[in-house]
Amino acid sequence: MNIERLTGELSIRRQLADGTATQLEAVKQIIQQVKIEGDAALMHFAKKWDRAELSSLRVTKEEIEEAAGRFDPRLLGDLTEAANNIRSYHEGQKQQGYRHDREDGSYVAQRVTAIESAGLYVPGGTAAYPSSVLMNVIPAQVAGVERIVVISPPDSEGKLSDGVLVAAHILGIEELYKSGGAQAIAALAYGTESIEPVDKITGPGNIFVALAKREVNGDVAIDMIAGPSEIAIIADESAYADEIAADLLSQAEHDPLASAVLLTESLEMAEQVQAQVAKQLKTLPRADIATASIRDHGMIYVADTRAELIRAANQLAPEHLEIMTSDAERLSEEIRHAGAIFIGRYSSEPVGDYFAGTNHVLPTNSTARFSSALSVYDFVKRTSIVHYSEQAWRNNQEKIARLARLEGLEAHARAVESRAWKKENQS
Amino acid sequence: MNIERLTGELSIRRQLADGTATQLEAVKQIIQQVKIEGDAALMHFAKKWDRAELSSLRVTKEEIEEAAGRFDPRLLGDLTEAANNIRSYHEGQKQQGYRHDREDGSYVAQRVTAIESAGLYVPGGTAAYPSSVLMNVIPAQVAGVERIVVISPPDSEGKLSDGVLVAAHILGIEELYKSGGAQAIAALAYGTESIEPVDKITGPGNIFVALAKREVNGDVAIDMIAGPSEIAIIADESAYADEIAADLLSQAEHDPLASAVLLTESLEMAEQVQAQVAKQLKTLPRADIATASIRDHGMIYVADTRAELIRAANQLAPEHLEIMTSDAERLSEEIRHAGAIFIGRYSSEPVGDYFAGTNHVLPTNSTARFSSALSVYDFVKRTSIVHYSEQAWRNNQEKIARLARLEGLEAHARAVESRAWKKENQS
Repeated sequence: MNIERLTGELSIRRQLADGTATQLEAVKQIIQQVKIEGDAALMHFAKKWDRAELSSLRVTKEEIEEAAGRFDPRLLGDLTEAANNIRSYHEGQKQQGYRHDREDGSYVAQRVTAIESAGLYVPGGTAAYPSSVLMNVIPAQVAGVERIVVISPPDSEGKLSDGVLVAAHILGIEELYKSGGAQAIAALAYGTESIEPVDKITGPGNIFVALAKREVNGDVAIDMIAGPSEIAIIADESAYADEIAADLLSQAEHDPLASAVLLTESLEMAEQVQAQVAKQLKTLPRADIATASIRDHGMIYVADTRAELIRAANQLAPEHLEIMTSDAERLSEEIRHAGAIFIGRYSSEPVGDYFAGTNHVLPTNSTARFSSALSVYDFVKRTSIVHYSEQAWRNNQEKIARLARLEGLEAHARAVESRAWKKENQS
Repeated sequence: MNIERLTGELSIRRQLADGTATQLEAVKQIIQQVKIEGDAALMHFAKKWDRAELSSLRVTKEEIEEAAGRFDPRLLGDLTEAANNIRSYHEGQKQQGYRHDREDGSYVAQRVTAIESAGLYVPGGTAAYPSSVLMNVIPAQVAGVERIVVISPPDSEGKLSDGVLVAAHILGIEELYKSGGAQAIAALAYGTESIEPVDKITGPGNIFVALAKREVNGDVAIDMIAGPSEIAIIADESAYADEIAADLLSQAEHDPLASAVLLTESLEMAEQVQAQVAKQLKTLPRADIATASIRDHGMIYVADTRAELIRAANQLAPEHLEIMTSDAERLSEEIRHAGAIFIGRYSSEPVGDYFAGTNHVLPTNSTARFSSALSVYDFVKRTSIVHYSEQAWRNNQEKIARLARLEGLEAHARAVESRAWKKENQS
C-alpha cells in the first residue's frame, strides 16, 4: 500500500460498469427473447447458464420452510435483530404529505403514495448476500409497497441459497422466483406468464444485470447502478493501526476494483498501517482479491493539516467514510460529501453493512456529491394537487393568462379564460 | 377527436426521446470537443448553430438590468407573485435529518445536505419559457444549493431572451451563460475556462440536449428526461364542454406528440367536447401543432361506470389529471398514479403550469407510477451516520461477525473483531 504526501487535488478515477458492445448486444437479445417467449426463455437460460432444470420458476412455500428449518438458529436470530434495526432506522424516512390552504379557498398539496410493486434482484453463487435482501426489501416495506418480489439465479439443483430464502422469510416475502442475469431483469420489467411485471427494480448484480437495468430504465424505475465499493478512513494518532488496517481490508476483500484509502496527518500512523495491511493480508481467505484491490486502488495520503484531510475526504465523496480521531464527531460535521459516515473507533464499517440499521446500498464513484443511500424515499412517489376556488381563479386568471401569452401559449391563456365565457354571457 | 367505448385495458404508447445513431454520435463528438477545447468550442458552436458571434459567454450585469428595465411591469409583478407561490409550496418539501439514540450509547442518524451546485438548461428561441426558470431554480434555492447557474442559447445578436433574464433576476441568479444544445450540457458537466462544472443538471431541451444529458449522467446528476406532455380529464355532466375542450387544447398546442384524453361516462358530454375541440381549434395561433396532437394523440373514452374511469386514469398515470366532476375532491382520492391532479372547474392546468405554486416539471409516459414532480428532494442528498459506543460494539460484535462469515466475508468479521485484539492482550 503506497504512502503519498497529499498535495492539491486528488485524481479520482471513475469506474463505471459500461460493458462491451458484445455484452450490450447479448443483453438486448436476452430481453427480446424474454419479451417474446416469457417463462420458456427464463427456463432456457436457467438451463444454459445456471445448469438448472426448472419445472417451475416460483419458489414454493416448502422450499422456504425447509430452508428456515435447517438454518442455524443463532444466525436466524442475528438476521432478525438486524432486520429490526434496519426497519427502525428507515421508519425515520417516512414521508408525509402536506397541504397549504389559502384564504381564497384554494389549496396546493403534496400527496405521498407508495409505488405498487418492487422487484429485488439478488445475485446467486458466491455472492448470495442475505443482508442485501434486508437492505432492499425493508425500505420498500416501510414505504408501504404492496407487492415485493425477489428474484435470484438458482444453483445447479434448481434451488436458491438458504440465506436468501431465510432473509426473505423473516421479512414475510412470499413471492420469490428462480432466474438470474439479464433475463431476470427483463422478466421483472416486462413480465412473463409466471411473473407479473413490477414498477421498480433494485439490487446489485454483475455486468449483465447492470446493462439490463440500464436498458429497461424508463419502462420501469431502477435504483442506482453501483460501482466498486469504497472506503476512506480519516485517522489520527489516537487510533490503532491494526484496526485501521482490518477495516481497509474489509473493503478490499469485496472486489479487485474496490478502493481503500487512509487519510492522516501522521506519517508514523501511515507506516504502521502500511505494515499492518501487509501482515493481515497474508492470512485472509480472499487474499488474492484484497491484494489486487490494495495494490491497484489502495492509498495512504499524509497531509500537513487537518483542513487538507477534510478537503480530500469531501473531494473523494466516498461511499463509506470512517473517522477515527479524538474529535471524530466534531470532525464529521465538516464532511459534506459521503454516502455513510462511521464515527469513532467502535464504528467499523461492517457494523453498518450488517447491523446498525442504516442502509448498505450507498452511492459510489463520488456520486455522494449528489446522491444518497437506498431509502424509503426510493419507494414512494409524490402527486401534486391543485385546487382553485372560483375566487382564486377570479383573482388570478388575468395574471395566468398574461404569463401564458408571454410564452406564446395562447391556448393556455384561453383555457384559463374559458371559465369566464359563460359567466360573461350570463352577466 | 375520436370517441371510443372504454373496454378493458388502454393501450399506452410510450414516446421516448431515443434519437438516432447519427444524433448520438454528433452529441458524443460535441461533448469531446467541449472537454478538449472548452470555451473555444462553445464559441464555435454558438456561431455555427445560433449564428451568434460571442465575445464572452457570461451574461453581464448590464444585460440583466437592461432586460429588467424594459420588461412590462405587470408581467414582472406576475412573475414575482408566481415565484412567491412556487417558493411557498416548495418550502413544504424541506427535509429534516433525524437521529435515533439507543441506550447503549450508540446512534444512527440521517443528515440532509444540499448539493453544492446546480445548472439549469433553458431552451432558446420560440420555447424560451421564463416559467421554467422559476420551476427549476426555486426548488434548488429552497434546498439550499449555493451555486445555481442558468445556461441558454443566445439569439443571433448574442442575447438571451428578456423573459429568461428577468425570471433569473427576480430569483437573484447572477450566473448565466450563453450556450445551447449538447455543448451547453457538456460545459455544465465538465466545465470550461469560463464555466465551473456543476453537480446536477436540470431543465428541458431538444433531442440533442436530452441525449447529452443521458451521456453525462453519472458524472453529474440529471433530472428526468421528459417525454411529450400529457393531459387526461375526468368529467361528468356537471362540467362544461367548452372548458374541457379549452383545457385539452392547451396541452395539444405544446407539441404534435402531446396527448389529450377525456374520460367520461357521458356520451353526450363526449360529443359536445368533440364539437368544441373542432370549433376552438380553428382560431388557435398554434392550430397546426394542436391539430396534429389531437388527431394523433387525442382521444375521448366513454365508460359505463365510474370505476372504469378511475381504473383508466390510474392506468394512464398521466402527467396532468384534471377532475371536473361534482365530487372531484373525493374522486381524486381514488387516483393513485398521476403527476399532478387539478381538482374542480377552476383548476385549469395552466393554473399549475404558471402560478399556483406546484412544480410544472412532472413525470410523463406513465412514469408517475414510480416518479414525481421536480422538487426540493432532487437538490439534497442524505448521508447516513453510524456511531457505535464500546458497549454497543461489545453487545453486538459476535452477531456482526457471524453475519459477515455467513456471506463468506472473513475480513469483515475480523474488522469488527479487531477492536478486541488489544483488549484481549490487556485483560
